[in-house]
Parts: sequence; C-alpha cells; structure tokens
Amino acid sequence: MRVLGVDPGLTRCGVGVVEGVAGRPLTMLGVGVVRTPVDADLGHRLVAVEQGIEAWLDEHRPEFVAVERVFSQHNVRTVMGTAQASAVAMLCAARRGIPVALHTPSEVKAAVTGSGRADKAQVGAMVTRLLRLGAPPRPADAADALALAICHIWRAPAQNRLQQAVARHTVRSTKGRTA
Amino acid sequence: MRVLGVDPGLTRCGVGVVEGVAGRPLTMLGVGVVRTPVDADLGHRLVAVEQGIEAWLDEHRPEFVAVERVFSQHNVRTVMGTAQASAVAMLCAARRGIPVALHTPSEVKAAVTGSGRADKAQVGAMVTRLLRLGAPPRPADAADALALAICHIWRAPAQNRLQQAVARHTVRSTKGRTA
Repeated sequence: MRVLGVDPGLTRCGVGVVEGVAGRPLTMLGVGVVRTPVDADLGHRLVAVEQGIEAWLDEHRPEFVAVERVFSQHNVRTVMGTAQASAVAMLCAARRGIPVALHTPSEVKAAVTGSGRADKAQVGAMVTRLLRLGAPPRPADAADALALAICHIWRAPAQNRLQQAVARHTVRSTKGRTA
Repeated sequence: MRVLGVDPGLTRCGVGVVEGVAGRPLTMLGVGVVRTPVDADLGHRLVAVEQGIEAWLDEHRPEFVAVERVFSQHNVRTVMGTAQASAVAMLCAARRGIPVALHTPSEVKAAVTGSGRADKAQVGAMVTRLLRLGAPPRPADAADALALAICHIWRAPAQNRLQQAVARHTVRSTKGRTA
C-alpha cells in the first residue's frame, strides 16, 4: 500500500510518501514541503498548492491520500489557511479517484508514538526509526506528513480496501455531473 | 464589468453573475446554487463544487470573482466546510487568471442596503430592486451571491483594474512552477 500523507498549510504544506503494509517494515519513497509565497494573494497560493500536490501525485501515484483533519477550535488565526490548503489536497486526490482519509493529530501521534499527546520531537524520532532514516525529516511539517502516511497504513486494511472501492465508484458516478 | 459572486458552502454554494458599472443600472446574467450531497465524502463534495463553479465560469466568463470572506469566529460547526468550498472557488478563478476579491458579510450588506447589520430579507429586497427582478432570488444563498457581485462592482473601479492586472501577471509568472 502506497500512501501520500499531507500536513496541510499555505506557507508550508508537508508531503511524504510511505509504502508498506501493517506489520512489515515500511519504506519512505519521498518527503518534502510545498511552499507558497506569504505575500502572494490567496487565490494564487491555492493554485501553487494545487500544482505542488499534483506533482507529488504524478510522481508517486499513491493509492491513498491521508490528510490531517483540521479543527476550528485552536489556532484561529491560521486555521482558515490550513482548511483551504487541505481542501485543495482533498480535491486533487478525489478528482483522480484516490480515496482520502482524514486523521486527527492525536490519532497520528498515538499511532506512531503510542501517545496522543506526544510532542514534535517524539513524532520526528519515531518517524526516523520506523522508516530507518539517518535523521528526522525537516521541517516538522515533512515529518508530520510521513507520520500521517504511517498512521494510515496501520489502520485496518479491510476498511481501507472498502474506502478505495467506494471512492472509485463515486468518482465514476459524479464525472461530468455539474449542479 | 462582469462579476461572479460566490456565497461559499458545501451543501449550498450560491452563485450569481451581475454585469454593469458603478452609477448605472445593473443586469443579472444568471443566478443559482451549486449543491453537493450531504452524505458524500468530503473529497467528492469538493470535486462537485469545482465542477459547478467551472460550469459557471465557462458559461459566463466573468472578469472578477467575488467570494464571501469566511471568518473562523462564528458558526464553528460549519465554518470548515465553508472555508473549504471558498478555497475551491478561489482556486478555480485564480487558475484562469481571474482576480478574486473577498468581501465580508457586513461590507456586502452595507453596500446593498446601507447598513452592515441588515437582515437576509433586506438584502434580498435590495438585490431584487437593484437588479429589477420580479421576486427575491431563492434560496438566500443565491441572493447573497448576487449581493456580493453588486458590492464588488460598486468598489473603486481603479482598484479593480489594478487587481486585474496583478492577477494576470501573477498567473503568468507561476504557470508551470511547482514547489
């Protein structure tokens, strides 16, 4: 199973591709950050996020995209940009019929460290260990994207297969339909 | 000047096209709602919003897109969906080099009714009068989209022309660039 994890953001959108199955060693296929200029207007920043995500989908052809679930409760000042960047990532995946899974930050932390309240350093350390990397990926957004992909791979495989079937069916039935 | 107003939402996204210049009678070219099924998953709802907005852009070729600015302070339960639908609308416009303007609900109300605290009925009544319609557009999201377009047309024309020039330049300079 090949998963693109996306830690959404307008200034830095973390992306990481992990391949593997639950219970076996995992492999990192790529990690990076899609950046957009802070001084550009919002529409053009969203276009730049789209171009970046599309390039990662083209290169790695993931079977799933795992995106961090955005909450409106905290980080009120940045949450809108995060929600908008996540919308673009979900749109890019869904357009291709790739199922999108949302995982909360605490689900991701719990999956890779055993604690939903782990800090960034712990997450980075576990990502480094699980993917057998020489050093924690930088910036933290990149490590978080890999953690999201790992979290997704470790979910129940049967559930993932079902979601994949539904996503493929849905994209076929909505193609060409406009409201 | 031809403006597509967008009142963003996942369940109902209001869209309305108005043509005219400040100080002259305005003409409504189209009004409607892009709907997406509540029970579909988020990725597919965003794809449906994209298809709907693209169809409106294809049909009406607006020079500007005016989108309601989303705040995270109120309507915490629905604000994420609104932010995500607005991101898709901005993305569709910016991809085509169409400048996107954001107006707050109170700016729009003040523009069409003279009061930033006008209610939905007042906004609907003024939209009906300004566009010489037989009845207020339904649902309210459709009327709000027309009010956004009117608000935008009534902004300083020089400012709009500047924004248009910048948007065209920016889309040229970002084309093909991926991060």
